[in-house]
Amino acid sequence: MTFSLRTNLQMHAVVLDAFGGPESLTYRLQPRPKPGPGSLLVRVMAASVNPIDYKIRLNGAWTDIRPPAIIGADAAGVVEETGIGVTRFRKGDEVFYAAEISQMTPGTYAEYHVVPETLVAYKPGNLSFVEAASLPLAASTAWQALFERGHIEIGDTVLIHAGSGGVGSAAIQMAKAAGARVITTCRKSNVDLVVRLGADVAIDYRVENVVDAVRKIIGADSVDTILDTVGGPVFAQNLELVKPRGRILSITASETPLRRAYQKNIDLHLIRATRSGSLMEKIARMVGAGLLKPVVDSVYPIERTDEAHGRIETGGVRGKVVLSLESLSS
Amino acid sequence: MTFSLRTNLQMHAVVLDAFGGPESLTYRLQPRPKPGPGSLLVRVMAASVNPIDYKIRLNGAWTDIRPPAIIGADAAGVVEETGIGVTRFRKGDEVFYAAEISQMTPGTYAEYHVVPETLVAYKPGNLSFVEAASLPLAASTAWQALFERGHIEIGDTVLIHAGSGGVGSAAIQMAKAAGARVITTCRKSNVDLVVRLGADVAIDYRVENVVDAVRKIIGADSVDTILDTVGGPVFAQNLELVKPRGRILSITASETPLRRAYQKNIDLHLIRATRSGSLMEKIARMVGAGLLKPVVDSVYPIERTDEAHGRIETGGVRGKVVLSLESLSS
Repeated sequence: MTFSLRTNLQMHAVVLDAFGGPESLTYRLQPRPKPGPGSLLVRVMAASVNPIDYKIRLNGAWTDIRPPAIIGADAAGVVEETGIGVTRFRKGDEVFYAAEISQMTPGTYAEYHVVPETLVAYKPGNLSFVEAASLPLAASTAWQALFERGHIEIGDTVLIHAGSGGVGSAAIQMAKAAGARVITTCRKSNVDLVVRLGADVAIDYRVENVVDAVRKIIGADSVDTILDTVGGPVFAQNLELVKPRGRILSITASETPLRRAYQKNIDLHLIRATRSGSLMEKIARMVGAGLLKPVVDSVYPIERTDEAHGRIETGGVRGKVVLSLESLSS
Repeated sequence: MTFSLRTNLQMHAVVLDAFGGPESLTYRLQPRPKPGPGSLLVRVMAASVNPIDYKIRLNGAWTDIRPPAIIGADAAGVVEETGIGVTRFRKGDEVFYAAEISQMTPGTYAEYHVVPETLVAYKPGNLSFVEAASLPLAASTAWQALFERGHIEIGDTVLIHAGSGGVGSAAIQMAKAAGARVITTCRKSNVDLVVRLGADVAIDYRVENVVDAVRKIIGADSVDTILDTVGGPVFAQNLELVKPRGRILSITASETPLRRAYQKNIDLHLIRATRSGSLMEKIARMVGAGLLKPVVDSVYPIERTDEAHGRIETGGVRGKVVLSLESLSS
């Protein structure tokens, strides 16, 4: 590891220098931001990697982000400075949040990050920074999908694809806490994890035909709600498995023929998680009640963000890949 | 017109002899059906033509219907005979309904039709058979889309495509009755009709760019709910016009990229109207209250069903095209 000396006007950050492979991510000095009105300057202690991050890195032309840019949505850290008008937080508070990023709003792969206080909540006291940083975007997505859009109910049968992933591992725990029966897909090596999280049935999608397996276990047309974190060919499976008048919660932008969905009278909810401090508080309460446990696949020092991206792109992660910045603390 | 002599074991009907053009529809004698347990034999006085009818006629390979077959979903008529176990209707009752059709269940383009009593309601007394037959499937579709799936509310802005069509003309009246602001599209010659039905704004889709026109009138991202009866290129317009977290109610099986829908957090409800007697009763109550008026574009004797199909395929109809069988009554 190499450290650059920095002034108080600078910070270490990971900069996306061009759309492309992990090598497009460069660890270097950047200007340190200042918090505007209503915003916090947070000393980031940990940031997690979400699939949207590497999708932007690969080719984010569909967003308004243009390199060079700092990406990253999740953070846990300590409030360093508050902007004018901030009322709920003060210097020294430990917080976690999912940030909205854009060309004008840099992300969390950085030593310091500016965020509107409305997006922020107190970090649950029993979680480390690494654990807390693993939750925000994945848990927000799962919560909004299952509860705000999907309205799952006690006794519903819910199919959660990729149950060992970031969103999947949170969604399994949430669906179980809400009284649903959970079927999930994962690779064989992760069956132990999803069962521990509460899944009632785990299907090894690399060995079994998921449609046949689900039908064999619970019968045809028996899935009330499907959370699809994968898209593509999985979306077509969903249209076969969902019951008539059922719902599909999709967090991907699949391109798909909808005839089957029409024939079955499906509700299709396309979910791009919105960021919200009050939602983070709900997630913190779930953690406090022991109903939601972070699942951390691996921790990389932020200088090795390229390796962290490589890890998540390979697939088969067990929960979240987290970037740690704690070694940068003086 | 030519009449064939028929015995009491026969009936006149329109038979789809092959998937193809209107000439595939042949008017000829068929065996008269008998009502099974729980079903009614209805002497059909009028049947209406729905777009699904000509889509099946053109190429219904995606359904389970195979020529030769009698198609047609809507009917108004008189109960001729009741099957064992029928409790709610008796011979002589005037009824209307939307039927479910399949390879085993012939449709309503026929002098006699068998239907489960659960799908049937009493014909509103102030409507002719032709008027009553114009309503069932179109009004059921509009009702289920706007109320059961879309949950529109007072003050919502609702965009209804093809407002002068069968579903559109019912949907405009229903959305207005529920307190919504209604924007609709139609050709210039039908503006008078949609305004009379209650539309607040009518856009001539053949002259104006609908996206630009709607934005100019009510601003960007202001449409709460869109009822899309058209699909294809119109579906792409919807994704631009619907507000974030808004909803699209689609009664077509469009093939479409969903990235924009994902970015805007859209709920997409794919609606294939289910048939139900209790829903027909709700529609009859709306008619009785003066809140829903049938809109009949034209009436063809059933022997000229081919011409009726040609009329609806040409586009620009004002409400429903109805087939009359009253001249067959003795």
